[in-house]
Amino acid sequence: MNEPVAAMMAGESPLAVICGGGSLPFAVADAVGKRGRRVVLFAIRGWADPQRVAAYPHHWAAFGQFGRFCRVARREGCRDVVFIGSVVRPAIWHIRPDFKMLRLLPRIFSLFRGGDDHLLLGVAAMFEEHGFRLIGAHEMAPEILMPAGPLGRDRPNDRDHVDIAKALALLNATSPFDVGQAAVVADQRVLAIEAAEGTDHMLARIAELRQSGRVEAASGRGVLVKAAKRGQDRRFDLPSIGPRTVEGAARAGLAGIAVVAGSTIVAEPAQIAKVADRERLFVFGVRDETVDR
Amino acid sequence: MNEPVAAMMAGESPLAVICGGGSLPFAVADAVGKRGRRVVLFAIRGWADPQRVAAYPHHWAAFGQFGRFCRVARREGCRDVVFIGSVVRPAIWHIRPDFKMLRLLPRIFSLFRGGDDHLLLGVAAMFEEHGFRLIGAHEMAPEILMPAGPLGRDRPNDRDHVDIAKALALLNATSPFDVGQAAVVADQRVLAIEAAEGTDHMLARIAELRQSGRVEAASGRGVLVKAAKRGQDRRFDLPSIGPRTVEGAARAGLAGIAVVAGSTIVAEPAQIAKVADRERLFVFGVRDETVDR
Repeated sequence: MNEPVAAMMAGESPLAVICGGGSLPFAVADAVGKRGRRVVLFAIRGWADPQRVAAYPHHWAAFGQFGRFCRVARREGCRDVVFIGSVVRPAIWHIRPDFKMLRLLPRIFSLFRGGDDHLLLGVAAMFEEHGFRLIGAHEMAPEILMPAGPLGRDRPNDRDHVDIAKALALLNATSPFDVGQAAVVADQRVLAIEAAEGTDHMLARIAELRQSGRVEAASGRGVLVKAAKRGQDRRFDLPSIGPRTVEGAARAGLAGIAVVAGSTIVAEPAQIAKVADRERLFVFGVRDETVDR
Repeated sequence: MNEPVAAMMAGESPLAVICGGGSLPFAVADAVGKRGRRVVLFAIRGWADPQRVAAYPHHWAAFGQFGRFCRVARREGCRDVVFIGSVVRPAIWHIRPDFKMLRLLPRIFSLFRGGDDHLLLGVAAMFEEHGFRLIGAHEMAPEILMPAGPLGRDRPNDRDHVDIAKALALLNATSPFDVGQAAVVADQRVLAIEAAEGTDHMLARIAELRQSGRVEAASGRGVLVKAAKRGQDRRFDLPSIGPRTVEGAARAGLAGIAVVAGSTIVAEPAQIAKVADRERLFVFGVRDETVDR
């Protein structure tokens, strides 16, 4: 008897996948489905791709319809829940609360103070109190994690490795402050640190600084480094990269991208390799042996 | 016999003030002049304000005319040198080297790798090897330093103080990495950390993030905090604020600005207070007792 069949016979409950934007939700759904577990998508209106969602058992929901999610997910027999896909931290007034959410609102307001970790841990607790178990997408589908080594043809050279080490040390230092965990270092100079603006915006800033001459590093110098926060609850906030990240790094004139192998989610690795090779950038998984992440 | 006269009679050499943009060079020149010491301005073309420069003994120079500076400053009898005023870290190809500078060029190239501290310490060493002594503008004119307490009417409330403490702790953590020392924290969330872009750009980013709804903190929340790097060579790289900083903070919807008293340079404090009162922001000098800066 193979594993999936065993799992089904053991009465494994379907997996609820709450889907944001991008391709990752489908990569997760496919990987889990392949192992024989039923997947039910809860697509977030305005984020999840309707055409792709249609190919799976699914329900639509808006931000804030927590009561609806609980009802439908229970009816589907789901107990395990995965969050995956891009969603910008919503402005609190964009949340249209249903009745259950309304009662939770004072608590949600307090979650919105503080960093992302604070918000996400609070949301996780909310799900768990309602009988669901939050599971990291990568625990269900380890194939979405960045491997060690390069994704395309290129590799960092010695100079790049020095920049990578400096960026990792910096991210390690900012980690306790619950900030977005990415930085750009070129020729050992820290050009940018990400906070609320997100990686794409940070890369656009580097491109601007270069064009205006405020950053004089030659094109093809500098590395974008992303790393998970230390002690970060990995269930649903690992850093991630996709083809758009590579395009942004290319426009910013960087030499490449380095992320921590095994703790970074990769959307469309084949497409990443293709863009990286076209732009002659490296996309590299480093092993972070110094830090317990 | 009063102090200035004593200094002159002791044959104190004139002070060379290398002037960037803004009003600070003139505040320093006036303060030093009031104490009876002769001041000679070395105005940087493209940065120093020609109309105001004209009121003082002065020479014009471009970036990179280090040989010319050495010659003229020696002829003027200057030994002590102060750098002051805004100058964006120049792109290396904007430097038009004279003959002496040309010989120093390999060294200057290597200075341009790494952070600002690295660059500035190297430049300081260059001056000293040529017989000059670099002195911090605030050592010559302590009246340009931020005092403890508010500059205008408003003061931070308890919530602001929590944000200020978080920002100071963060800046303390990033300090060893030689990054621009400013951050914005609102409701305990780190919204932005400054690196190569500078404070004005960082504030513009916050304004954008707020407008686009990516940052949902209510208007009138959040503090811009600036602090000197630990162990930073204070002679010519203390953080500074001016009226434009207050205007930027107002556009970013912040509650106010906090800087470390005694280690931040303030341009036009009266104008700062006026803008702060008009915009209902606080501009506050905190005493940083926890950190030896």
